[in-house]
Amino acid sequence: MLNCALIKFKEVRDKYGYLTPIEEKIDIPFEIKRVYYISKVEQGVTRGFHSHRKLHQVLICLNGSVKIRLKNPDGEEVIELNEPSLGLYIGPYIWREMFDFTEGSVLLVLASEYYDEDDYIRNYDYYLEEAKKRF
Amino acid sequence: MLNCALIKFKEVRDKYGYLTPIEEKIDIPFEIKRVYYISKVEQGVTRGFHSHRKLHQVLICLNGSVKIRLKNPDGEEVIELNEPSLGLYIGPYIWREMFDFTEGSVLLVLASEYYDEDDYIRNYDYYLEEAKKRF
Repeated sequence: MLNCALIKFKEVRDKYGYLTPIEEKIDIPFEIKRVYYISKVEQGVTRGFHSHRKLHQVLICLNGSVKIRLKNPDGEEVIELNEPSLGLYIGPYIWREMFDFTEGSVLLVLASEYYDEDDYIRNYDYYLEEAKKRF
Repeated sequence: MLNCALIKFKEVRDKYGYLTPIEEKIDIPFEIKRVYYISKVEQGVTRGFHSHRKLHQVLICLNGSVKIRLKNPDGEEVIELNEPSLGLYIGPYIWREMFDFTEGSVLLVLASEYYDEDDYIRNYDYYLEEAKKRF
């Protein structure tokens, strides 16, 4: 899907466990200004339901698994994130919904900008209207 | 302990789960150039055994728990990280060892610099020698 990409990170696996390093502008295509992580999401809950105008993000599931529904005006796709070495890049004007969080799952998000409520589009009709000019 | 601090992050808890946002230079005292995360560490394993000369880091346990042994030339301390809203800032010249990773535990580290092997001190005697000039 346009403005989305899966990224496979290098992972150091040894007898001491798994370690995944991510360097800004090298392993991901932007500078990290903000990180956030989501945990303790109960079964049946869906989060997200918004798009951004400018923000670039990478989503990584660090434990358990979670599904991400991505939409743009041309269609939709569901991606399952289930390993710490797999990142999902989401660029501007992609509608996203996160669901099927398993117990103990942790979703880490690396973001290119500080939080800015004005960058969100939270109404799907408004989203379609703006996004149709871009796809 | 000098050059170390616990940081309590704000956490958004609602029916959709827990979300913890961390903005660089606001919630932590440095710019994030690199993140890495450690998972699937078996019981009985201890990691770390090094200090940095310049690097600033914040360690956060996103699932399960892990203990961190911190040493400087004047003494040592053990901190347990067991919730996503608790960060441990570690500055320069602190020797660290991570142990007692529980099953499914995930340790996230936010770092102020790109990876640089020359910034590591991996020999404890050399560490003491350099660090004694600073504490």
